[in-house]
Amino acid sequence: MPSVERLLAMPRYSGALLYTIRLQQELQTKPGSHPFDEILYCNIGNPQALGQQPITFFREVLALCDYPALLDRDETHALFSSDAIARAWEILDLIPDRATGAYSHSQGIKGLREAIAVGIAERDGFPANADDIFLTDGASPAVHMMMQLLIRSEKDGILCPIPQYPLYSASIALHGGCLVPYYLDEGKGWGLEIFELKQQLAVARTQSITVRALVVINPGNPTGQVLSEENQKEIVEFCRKEGLVLLADEVYQENIYADNKKFNSFKKISRSMGYGGDDLPLISFQSVSKGYYGECGKRGGYMEVTGLSSDVKEQIYKVASVNLCSNISGQILSSLVMNPPKVGDESYESYMAEKDEILSSLARRAKALEDAFNSLEGVTCNKAEGAMYLFPRLHLPQKAIKAAEAAKTAPDAYYARRLLDATGIVVVPGSGFGQVPGTWHIRSTILPPEDKIPAIISRLKAFHEAFMDEFRDQGVA
Amino acid sequence: MPSVERLLAMPRYSGALLYTIRLQQELQTKPGSHPFDEILYCNIGNPQALGQQPITFFREVLALCDYPALLDRDETHALFSSDAIARAWEILDLIPDRATGAYSHSQGIKGLREAIAVGIAERDGFPANADDIFLTDGASPAVHMMMQLLIRSEKDGILCPIPQYPLYSASIALHGGCLVPYYLDEGKGWGLEIFELKQQLAVARTQSITVRALVVINPGNPTGQVLSEENQKEIVEFCRKEGLVLLADEVYQENIYADNKKFNSFKKISRSMGYGGDDLPLISFQSVSKGYYGECGKRGGYMEVTGLSSDVKEQIYKVASVNLCSNISGQILSSLVMNPPKVGDESYESYMAEKDEILSSLARRAKALEDAFNSLEGVTCNKAEGAMYLFPRLHLPQKAIKAAEAAKTAPDAYYARRLLDATGIVVVPGSGFGQVPGTWHIRSTILPPEDKIPAIISRLKAFHEAFMDEFRDQGVA
Repeated sequence: MPSVERLLAMPRYSGALLYTIRLQQELQTKPGSHPFDEILYCNIGNPQALGQQPITFFREVLALCDYPALLDRDETHALFSSDAIARAWEILDLIPDRATGAYSHSQGIKGLREAIAVGIAERDGFPANADDIFLTDGASPAVHMMMQLLIRSEKDGILCPIPQYPLYSASIALHGGCLVPYYLDEGKGWGLEIFELKQQLAVARTQSITVRALVVINPGNPTGQVLSEENQKEIVEFCRKEGLVLLADEVYQENIYADNKKFNSFKKISRSMGYGGDDLPLISFQSVSKGYYGECGKRGGYMEVTGLSSDVKEQIYKVASVNLCSNISGQILSSLVMNPPKVGDESYESYMAEKDEILSSLARRAKALEDAFNSLEGVTCNKAEGAMYLFPRLHLPQKAIKAAEAAKTAPDAYYARRLLDATGIVVVPGSGFGQVPGTWHIRSTILPPEDKIPAIISRLKAFHEAFMDEFRDQGVA
Repeated sequence: MPSVERLLAMPRYSGALLYTIRLQQELQTKPGSHPFDEILYCNIGNPQALGQQPITFFREVLALCDYPALLDRDETHALFSSDAIARAWEILDLIPDRATGAYSHSQGIKGLREAIAVGIAERDGFPANADDIFLTDGASPAVHMMMQLLIRSEKDGILCPIPQYPLYSASIALHGGCLVPYYLDEGKGWGLEIFELKQQLAVARTQSITVRALVVINPGNPTGQVLSEENQKEIVEFCRKEGLVLLADEVYQENIYADNKKFNSFKKISRSMGYGGDDLPLISFQSVSKGYYGECGKRGGYMEVTGLSSDVKEQIYKVASVNLCSNISGQILSSLVMNPPKVGDESYESYMAEKDEILSSLARRAKALEDAFNSLEGVTCNKAEGAMYLFPRLHLPQKAIKAAEAAKTAPDAYYARRLLDATGIVVVPGSGFGQVPGTWHIRSTILPPEDKIPAIISRLKAFHEAFMDEFRDQGVA
């Protein structure tokens, strides 16, 4: 089957979008036509669509770079912070001829890559190199580029977590490769077990599949776990031993909510183990869409490519150059999120207040929703240690499973649709992410505004109770 | 061969980039190390990299949308035109929750697509529909999406002009299809002859290739011709008769320099022939990178998809959704270039002055360079009726061709390298675009600043004379 048909045959979790849009229109045109008066979006990791405000400093700098004539005007000092003005000058000086409207080098503007390398080095305590950085329109195109280069035929496999963010299954399908699943252990907080990796690798090899890379999403999407340093070290050793490229999706690196957890980049881990640039092929993906900044619409991001030969990097460059370059505002924003205001800058305190408020509110929302899910009959929910999602498991009654079968839909999709129809709450069925066969989940973001969380919880509880009452298995002792 | 290897094996015209970067560095670190003191870039259609200034109105609106807090401040009225402020409000009101930092619908923000549809309808005199518009990060991703959907195997062919913009050959290679060439007639001003299309289609069919689509680039890249209405009608009939999708690359629609030429979209042509939406599958590509605006770094653009079933449009939507959405600044800018200031708006006169100055200067530069090429011994150059390029033919002496062979390079690449080494002028060898075997060309943009054109011409003439003196064939009567 041509790879695009494989993609088109896959369930996409945006599939319910048209239905949701219709509901939204009906609410506007026929008020009272549904048992709720607004749609409560818990389906997509899109913070600013749910009222999260952008970080002021970042937007100030972007506006000044978009219209640099402002920098020559006195009135500008009344409207913009002094460090935003200074930063805009710095950035313009990094751009050849200050041309923010020109195609850049296909890897991104060199000076911005250098700034990002400084930010990475500060984060990790190990040096980073601008030549290893490829700026991209968000993390998705970076993942596609790597899949394009790694996958040579349908016999090339990529180890991916299940559940997984479906970008990976879509990209592997599009590039004609084979997704080799490894299951995260729900019973151990969505733990990543090396034993499972070894087993699935062995199975793939008996099927003559050449496994080329391991995808690790940390913090996890949709599962929200944050890997321990110990676990990350095992993963590094596993990749070294088996000769795999480690594709580290680290786009949620700023989103950590558990007090006892800390984000460590795989680069930091491998360097701290004494491995240098040549010891492990490692790609780290980062995005401006996530973190506390949540600038999804700007389509900015980068990948840091280490441990690959200059020949392979030349190939990545060639693939990147097919689309000329990523958008310059996204490039600028990538440099900003990796180099936010520092102590002593005029914006520092307001920036920190904005950042802390967003992250602490996300932590509160994660906890409230986690507790709510765990309070439901037959639902268990691991903690969101990081990222932006909860992935509760639904232990559904047989009668509900039969009703789903009759409706020709997966039981979790059936539950999600019933939830939406009853409450206006939109979540994504677990089947879009993959799950252990016979288990059912939904993914809910933690992103609705804090003042709406109580309403979401009470509607969810009422719906769930009614659903269970409708379908509860009879006659079980 | 896996498709990515086919791509990597292709010559890319950015291939000489590293060499040029090294030259640039040497000029800075060792002044006097070369027979020139600056690099004169005539290789890439990247106007703002060569000093072209962005259109003020567009940048004002982008800055206001990036930092909407400005709209609430009095000082803003001193810094921005009143119609830019009004437009920013209009645009923010089109964006759900005014969230310029949120992922949009994967086709792009509905209100912006509606604005673009209005702009298309005004351009063509025929209606356009927001649901037919897919906003993209420049035209390149749109072309890739269509190739992805059209190409099912290596037996699927796409008719492409030769010479062609190498995005098409790269994209067809990446998606594993077959490029079916048709040659533009250099002797007739790079004319597109229907006879040639028919012939090449027949040849492809004898090779069991299913030709699915015809690519037409109008105005032409690298060839600069503007198709006549008559010719476009023949092309529409050809596509209808042969059941081909017409892929119309119309990104240079604003760049017309010949007094007797006019841009007509293929949609306008087909509607004026009485064909409705269902009579011809037609995709029109547009970009903010070209025109008089030249906003390459913003990565904005769209395709208008007509004459395809809603099923196929649903598939396009699904492919688009893999990368979530295009960048919002690029989406906004696409709506602006299709709806610039109008008579009576505060910015109208300054906008028109900026636009006219850019376009009339481009026309002057095109003419000066065309005359210069035609004045060279053994060089013939068709007029740049539109777009941003000249594609002169080099009738090279046998001795030069032998020297190129000895240097293991194509003769036009040899000429281009010698030109660069002697003068600092960077052009692209014709072999990157395809050409009739045994003919040699270079592509030169018309974009260097006007005050540098005389120096470029005199250096070019001196180089060419010396080159011909060095290689002129001896003993020819």
